[in-house]
Amino acid sequence: LTVELDETHDPRLLSWVETANDGACDFPIQNLPFCVFRRAGTGDTGRIGVGIGNCILDLSRAAADGLLADANEAAERCRSSTLNALMELGPVGWRRLRGAISALLSVNVVADRRRRAESMILPIADAEFLLPANIGDFTDFFTSIFHATNVGTLFRPETPLLPNYKWVPVAYHGRTSSICLSGHRFARPKGQIKLPDAPAPAYAPCRRLDFEAELGFFVGPGNRFGDPIAIQQSDQHVFGVCLLNDWSARDIQTWENQPLGPFLAKNFASTISPWVVTLDALAPFRTAAYLRPPQDPRPLPHLFDAADQASGAFDIKVGIYLETEAMRRLGSSPHVLANVRFKDSYWTVAQLIAHHTSNGCNLRPGDLLGSGTISNAERGDNGSMIELTDGGKNPLILPDGEKRTFLEDGDCIILRATAERPEATRIGFGECRARILSAQ
Amino acid sequence: LTVELDETHDPRLLSWVETANDGACDFPIQNLPFCVFRRAGTGDTGRIGVGIGNCILDLSRAAADGLLADANEAAERCRSSTLNALMELGPVGWRRLRGAISALLSVNVVADRRRRAESMILPIADAEFLLPANIGDFTDFFTSIFHATNVGTLFRPETPLLPNYKWVPVAYHGRTSSICLSGHRFARPKGQIKLPDAPAPAYAPCRRLDFEAELGFFVGPGNRFGDPIAIQQSDQHVFGVCLLNDWSARDIQTWENQPLGPFLAKNFASTISPWVVTLDALAPFRTAAYLRPPQDPRPLPHLFDAADQASGAFDIKVGIYLETEAMRRLGSSPHVLANVRFKDSYWTVAQLIAHHTSNGCNLRPGDLLGSGTISNAERGDNGSMIELTDGGKNPLILPDGEKRTFLEDGDCIILRATAERPEATRIGFGECRARILSAQ
Repeated sequence: LTVELDETHDPRLLSWVETANDGACDFPIQNLPFCVFRRAGTGDTGRIGVGIGNCILDLSRAAADGLLADANEAAERCRSSTLNALMELGPVGWRRLRGAISALLSVNVVADRRRRAESMILPIADAEFLLPANIGDFTDFFTSIFHATNVGTLFRPETPLLPNYKWVPVAYHGRTSSICLSGHRFARPKGQIKLPDAPAPAYAPCRRLDFEAELGFFVGPGNRFGDPIAIQQSDQHVFGVCLLNDWSARDIQTWENQPLGPFLAKNFASTISPWVVTLDALAPFRTAAYLRPPQDPRPLPHLFDAADQASGAFDIKVGIYLETEAMRRLGSSPHVLANVRFKDSYWTVAQLIAHHTSNGCNLRPGDLLGSGTISNAERGDNGSMIELTDGGKNPLILPDGEKRTFLEDGDCIILRATAERPEATRIGFGECRARILSAQ
Repeated sequence: LTVELDETHDPRLLSWVETANDGACDFPIQNLPFCVFRRAGTGDTGRIGVGIGNCILDLSRAAADGLLADANEAAERCRSSTLNALMELGPVGWRRLRGAISALLSVNVVADRRRRAESMILPIADAEFLLPANIGDFTDFFTSIFHATNVGTLFRPETPLLPNYKWVPVAYHGRTSSICLSGHRFARPKGQIKLPDAPAPAYAPCRRLDFEAELGFFVGPGNRFGDPIAIQQSDQHVFGVCLLNDWSARDIQTWENQPLGPFLAKNFASTISPWVVTLDALAPFRTAAYLRPPQDPRPLPHLFDAADQASGAFDIKVGIYLETEAMRRLGSSPHVLANVRFKDSYWTVAQLIAHHTSNGCNLRPGDLLGSGTISNAERGDNGSMIELTDGGKNPLILPDGEKRTFLEDGDCIILRATAERPEATRIGFGECRARILSAQ
């Protein structure tokens, strides 16, 4: 693998925030995910923080207090209510900041610095979160060949996978205004639905409401209008990764989708997690691109890079949980709908960046790229209800006896994710959750 | 018609900016379009201005000097480098501001106020423009049934118009990062192109580069997440109108378009004019919605409003001009490719707003909605080369003997538009132009 690890990845490194040293914690000192937070109930402007154990270190204050002087330019960019300026800085500054934060939170830090940093720590339980960035544009890809095939089979049994799939990292532009932060609720959308046997459509609440389990990639520096990013440089333009649920109204989608693609079927809500796990934190979890070598057909030269083939994928597992109204009433745990693995993505993140900019389209710091629904080869390892239930034909039976084809009012979908490997410290992504309310 | 006109629309009203009183001028005192400008070459932050004759009145300064005190809340929102805050205000404040500006620029203004305003006037020739708003999201519709039919015929001769067209105002989300202001240049995009007889695609410069002549609608106050805008209220959420060229790479589009719609075929560049003509200025040019009554099928109730049917369309003519490298060399005038009429749009702007928010999707001040390519029933009245040349099969012969199927390097496309009626003062939209450079 062509990945550099440094002392911030050392599995032996411990933090003086002791909850970080519990092996089951999402936020050990090897992770250091970013967020924008405030003390709950204050209504303050958001501040940039980093997750450590069950706490947040306030980076705005740490920067102001000179505790991150080794990474001064990056630290200054943490005195903001969004991550955009830090995202713009690029990997050299990001790595310097990661090193400074790691040193500050390490058990090896000198007592005076530890004491000052301790006063800048807030329990996550006392925080509320804001969107981590101003998202200028949101692009949603379609990187799982299994999802593409499964959904294609439902709509076009004779040609499930279209001829362009293995050449083009297919994508569409999504909506930024309705990107919401984990923890929100939203009403079941209404829309035009045309039942197969009805002579005309009707405006009615969606009957086939679905989730799509995805990862979201925040763009770093980005490119100038007209200047493509070469695949060899693509990784330098990805700041980090969040969880993303691209809610989908399948019945609205079926009727509106031609000829210009999804619109109201998707733009009523998308949910992201508050935590952005950096590409640096994910360095130990890089792996070879799926099916490579050999890949057939070989991607066009502007989408092919040997180093990317060798280590362009990320070994991230996403767990998908359903919590129904009945489960909440009875105090039952959410039910695991599926566990999916992003490493089987047909396209790498570097390929997405190279493709997106190959026509000169400019990416800006804070732009969000969605992976598309993550599904794997095995039946049941799917990131959407439409796949898990064969288009709504085979309901899932939940442990408490409830049945689901698509989602019902009161259902809450929770995404969690981890990256783990024997030789590295396991890291997690926190949670991405949202609950469906009844249509208004 | 259910439209209120007031003294600001009076055709007898004259301005002390004398070029505004020339009947051929785009910006008579009855128009008063907004822009964001600065003195050319200064690199200053943009300021909000209003077009009058061949000049701009600096509204930031007029507001600061108390010259717009009759519209104080709106005037305060002009002390900004974008129109977003003014767009957010809503129609009562907009109308008050229009009244105050009209009174200030009228020949009837008192001498002291005129003298003070004169010092805030800049010739358009000395200005440069900036994007009028921070555009949070860009949605492009498909409102011309003739365009939909013409393009559909090329791709699906057996079913040119899809079954959803007369029910759903079809749209897709576009890209905001690559929206550029009139006057820019851009390199011919490269992309994946799959020739019909080739076994595989290649990454190459676009061979079928096209324009799309559209109008753009800037959203006003918008709606909260989850709260649809009723069609009866929709007009209150449209601030004004600009010219829009949604450049399109037809060969890239053909290969990438399925199953999620256009992406790299569109997001390399979109061009807008700097001037935003308000819905108030357009009030005299409202007309009955196309084909109504009777319309068959009748739109669903959430898309139907009698007042909108009676006066929801706008009688705006868009002229499309091509200036080639050879024309510039010889000093020839640009060639008129077509003149198209927006009043034949199948869907009204109010229907677009109602549809867009019908699932709870939130619109924000400054969001941009494109009409889609404007084409009319008559052959030759088309807003794109793919229609004008029957998919590239029948080249246009230009007056100087040049031929065009699609656009060539050096070509500049210019859009101009006017609204005119016997009983009203003709108003114009300025220009939207951009030039194609060779691929890099």
